[in-house]
Amino acid sequence: MLLSGGLDSTTVLAIARAEGYEPYALSFRYGQRHTVELDAAGRVAEAFKVRRHVVADIDLRVFGGSALTDDAIDVPHHAGVAEVAQDIPVTYVPARNTIFLSFALAWAETLGASDVFIGVNALDYSGYPDCRPEYIEAYERMANRATRAGVEGTQRLKIHAPLMEMTKAQIILKGLELGVDYGLTHSCYDPVDARPCGTCDSCLLRAQGFAQAKQADPALAHAH
Amino acid sequence: MLLSGGLDSTTVLAIARAEGYEPYALSFRYGQRHTVELDAAGRVAEAFKVRRHVVADIDLRVFGGSALTDDAIDVPHHAGVAEVAQDIPVTYVPARNTIFLSFALAWAETLGASDVFIGVNALDYSGYPDCRPEYIEAYERMANRATRAGVEGTQRLKIHAPLMEMTKAQIILKGLELGVDYGLTHSCYDPVDARPCGTCDSCLLRAQGFAQAKQADPALAHAH
Repeated sequence: MLLSGGLDSTTVLAIARAEGYEPYALSFRYGQRHTVELDAAGRVAEAFKVRRHVVADIDLRVFGGSALTDDAIDVPHHAGVAEVAQDIPVTYVPARNTIFLSFALAWAETLGASDVFIGVNALDYSGYPDCRPEYIEAYERMANRATRAGVEGTQRLKIHAPLMEMTKAQIILKGLELGVDYGLTHSCYDPVDARPCGTCDSCLLRAQGFAQAKQADPALAHAH
Repeated sequence: MLLSGGLDSTTVLAIARAEGYEPYALSFRYGQRHTVELDAAGRVAEAFKVRRHVVADIDLRVFGGSALTDDAIDVPHHAGVAEVAQDIPVTYVPARNTIFLSFALAWAETLGASDVFIGVNALDYSGYPDCRPEYIEAYERMANRATRAGVEGTQRLKIHAPLMEMTKAQIILKGLELGVDYGLTHSCYDPVDARPCGTCDSCLLRAQGFAQAKQADPALAHAH
């Protein structure tokens, strides 16, 4: 499973665990501006006792084109969630989920695993094209033609996206029900001294989710 | 375009050039045992004056599972091409083309390019699942849902695999017709002092191709 250390992927890990899977977790050092989220991924992987947690090094800075990987593009900040753009924002990293899923596919094939989990979400998705159900379906179809299993017909690879149709509030309530400590997670695109900025799209959507779920965000209470 | 520095991708570069494209070339340092092929990619990129040649660092060793990325698995050697396995060989790197195409997709989206070229081949393909036409079709479909273009409907991304239905001999004859110097290219999976071993699957298929095309392989005449 893909584990960023954010709220969504952490909830997916809890869901996979609850369904009886024994997850292997994959994170990426992909040239992101900060590594706070990798620290969070490590904490979450440890808390859920995954079989193995791998951090793969890939260089997305070589292409640029996103505020998350290019120092020349600033992460946008807003006064409130109403200002969060409905079109594709500058924090979109071209083909990022496609690259991440491709590494997960490689590892799954090596392990002989047939289930890949990803925390994409079509409702509070910040307008990213690679977070839509039609994308995940097309990826799964491709994956089944890309691998030994596809040739030999011995195994059907499944891309699980259990959060696809959930609101952020529903995701949070599901996670709390499964015992997730969201204090371990990190969502901010632009942290200051490892603390969430509170005004980027990701912080605003997270705050709205906790507000709608009528819960307090434990990540705002303690610093890591 | 994906450029390994081998015979196939070099021919694809020549074809793209002849069709009027101005290629950007992408190679990978992916934990392969030797970097002779990256030297070849650099020579070829220079010879064809690509707009830009990027070598992206990605770590496939972290997963292992292939003779090309795992020191614990030996590259097989054979006395002749008749012994080349018809099933999937240990040199298969799980999901490698999927990962490579995903990086190409990221770069294409950043550049605003709508054409991606790859030198896969379904005839002399060494039994790799991700070298088949049904795989490329599924990848293209997925790619068009993964990107801004897919959401905005402004652009159709095309994966070009011009060698798909060609024999190695036909590829060589096509390249020679377009002026390719195959002395710049490198195909061997297991070179000794930067020289081809002559007995791995890749060397044997290449030798058979030159023999069937009734041509001499210039890479055997001079060392780089």
